[in-house]
Amino acid sequence: MEIPCPMRIATETMGGRWRPGILWRLMDGPMRYGELRRGMPWISEKILIRHLRDLEAAGLILRTDHGTQPPQVDYRLTEAGQTLGPVLTAMAAWGAGRSAAGAERLGA
Amino acid sequence: MEIPCPMRIATETMGGRWRPGILWRLMDGPMRYGELRRGMPWISEKILIRHLRDLEAAGLILRTDHGTQPPQVDYRLTEAGQTLGPVLTAMAAWGAGRSAAGAERLGA
Repeated sequence: MEIPCPMRIATETMGGRWRPGILWRLMDGPMRYGELRRGMPWISEKILIRHLRDLEAAGLILRTDHGTQPPQVDYRLTEAGQTLGPVLTAMAAWGAGRSAAGAERLGA
Repeated sequence: MEIPCPMRIATETMGGRWRPGILWRLMDGPMRYGELRRGMPWISEKILIRHLRDLEAAGLILRTDHGTQPPQVDYRLTEAGQTLGPVLTAMAAWGAGRSAAGAERLGA
């Protein structure tokens, strides 16, 4: 059995342009759809909903409908999703370092 | 000055579907274009060349033309690129764990 490339598995499951940002925000605990939407205004509604559905299908997040009126739906990391903690923390730390270095270059 | 989202900076610089795989392979040292191409046959030539150019423009990799005939060109991580080590290692480890868990489920 040919061993699949681990990096390809990672990028196809949690990678891409928007999924790391969604997963990273859910590290702080369950979030309602509206909160996620406001936290990532650069993602269109259609794209956000698609990624949430894919992440749920991949078993990384759980969608809970609280059955209330008006409807209350939230998303949270599953146990499998929480194993991404070290990756997401390392990515955000790298991005913050990159931003600081960039700000320095711009004399901010 | 509004603080940009660190995760967005990370995903827009080193994220996406193919860049982590390119960067991860260059962690072992300089590679020639042909080696990179053979190591990631699932990426088209056109896409690989575009990502290599973008990663070079982002200062994460360095392209060296050794000025020989036939032409010899290789790519290596820059110092900035090497700071991605912890992120890439964590991603690959997560992907390997996911693959093993998947293999177990399939009874491989």
